[in-house]
Amino acid sequence: MSRIALIIEYDGTNYCGWQIQKNGVSVQQRLEEALEKALGMKTAVVGAGRTDARVHALGQVAHFDADTDIPADKFFYVLNTLLPDDIRIKKSFTAPEGFHARFSAKGKHYRYVIRNAREKGAVDRLYTMFVPVPLDVERMRQAAKQVEGEHDFAAFCAAGSDLKGTTVRTVYSVDVTKDGDYIMIDVKGSGFLYNMVRIIAGTLISVGKEKLSPQDVRNAIEAKDRTLAGATAQAQGLFLMEVYYEFFHNSY
Amino acid sequence: MSRIALIIEYDGTNYCGWQIQKNGVSVQQRLEEALEKALGMKTAVVGAGRTDARVHALGQVAHFDADTDIPADKFFYVLNTLLPDDIRIKKSFTAPEGFHARFSAKGKHYRYVIRNAREKGAVDRLYTMFVPVPLDVERMRQAAKQVEGEHDFAAFCAAGSDLKGTTVRTVYSVDVTKDGDYIMIDVKGSGFLYNMVRIIAGTLISVGKEKLSPQDVRNAIEAKDRTLAGATAQAQGLFLMEVYYEFFHNSY
Repeated sequence: MSRIALIIEYDGTNYCGWQIQKNGVSVQQRLEEALEKALGMKTAVVGAGRTDARVHALGQVAHFDADTDIPADKFFYVLNTLLPDDIRIKKSFTAPEGFHARFSAKGKHYRYVIRNAREKGAVDRLYTMFVPVPLDVERMRQAAKQVEGEHDFAAFCAAGSDLKGTTVRTVYSVDVTKDGDYIMIDVKGSGFLYNMVRIIAGTLISVGKEKLSPQDVRNAIEAKDRTLAGATAQAQGLFLMEVYYEFFHNSY
Repeated sequence: MSRIALIIEYDGTNYCGWQIQKNGVSVQQRLEEALEKALGMKTAVVGAGRTDARVHALGQVAHFDADTDIPADKFFYVLNTLLPDDIRIKKSFTAPEGFHARFSAKGKHYRYVIRNAREKGAVDRLYTMFVPVPLDVERMRQAAKQVEGEHDFAAFCAAGSDLKGTTVRTVYSVDVTKDGDYIMIDVKGSGFLYNMVRIIAGTLISVGKEKLSPQDVRNAIEAKDRTLAGATAQAQGLFLMEVYYEFFHNSY
């Protein structure tokens, strides 16, 4: 039995998210279906983290265990033949000793993409959140600094979340960059609460609109009060870019 | 009666192209349906140029004539409310005196986007052509220079085209740029034969693969022989970026 790791890109538009659910088709389901065809038996796929419906991934990581003659790097070809076009294996390889896609993950990089223009786009509609009000990027950067570091992020967690354990997380960096009509928010951290990145994005958008100040963001964190942070930004602007491990590095 | 001009963005994925056809839904059809709802009567929309199935546009231009109280700039809002998400009006305005979307056009800018990487993408699959073989961009640039200028482009016109008149066209510039895994071919010219930009892209891809040389491209033009140029590149990598007029300037 050997453990094989996968780096996966997907367009989340047509999926109910990463995780298998009763209602709707998930990315995990499509992967397990492809693996069953490749291996001739049901095989569970373990992902580094869940993504919601319509959220995309350029660098999701997963593993599975198989007793197979197929060399690890050949699953790249085999699975891509069996998967739909909107799920692509970028790389497959023998997992390092002791590797677990979820438990070994040391952190993640998410990107949130905003279209900040007068008109909605057609081509980018499934991959951005549209914000017609001009956003003050410098002000968003100041608020982003408040989010960085180790904090109790209870204010940045979806209300009603089933929390097991602490809401303390470490955010390594929050970078806000502008490129033409697009504003990118790159968030890197040790781990994230449910909807945390989308709430950070929604909060920075409120700051960019001057509905909140950078100080309000600090206050929301200190008060641990979800109602003091901004709205949850739309799913389709979010991309899981990379999962960090001690074992290996993948970057996009 | 006044003539109103539209600048239009669309995602060509779900359309049979710009022009109304018996089989399949076209962008023009969706626009005329929206206009009929807005104006209460059938109204023809004239586009600057046709685009094929799955070809995208960031700056298509069209006009229509209407006897209406709706101010020209309000069609931006009215039509966007009535159109599907994958067709967006970027701007609407009273056309200058004598303006005709097709006959007044002085030239066009097309962009062809190649994903040049080992693996296919998921998120970009509908907006790029995938080429796994590493392309020699410098060699493509040398070939691009052969295409620039006034030439008889018979070799770069879809075989069997119903040609009315000359196949001489002026290509102002062909620029090849690389950005990470993406190679962009920007072609600007006075006018284009059927499939001409896709054949230019396919030919430059063959040059990048070292299947053709820059000199072969010159020879194909001089021989006016379609079989000496490269294959027609896939539709989904092509974007109509801008239509040039003396009357006004739109750029994306």
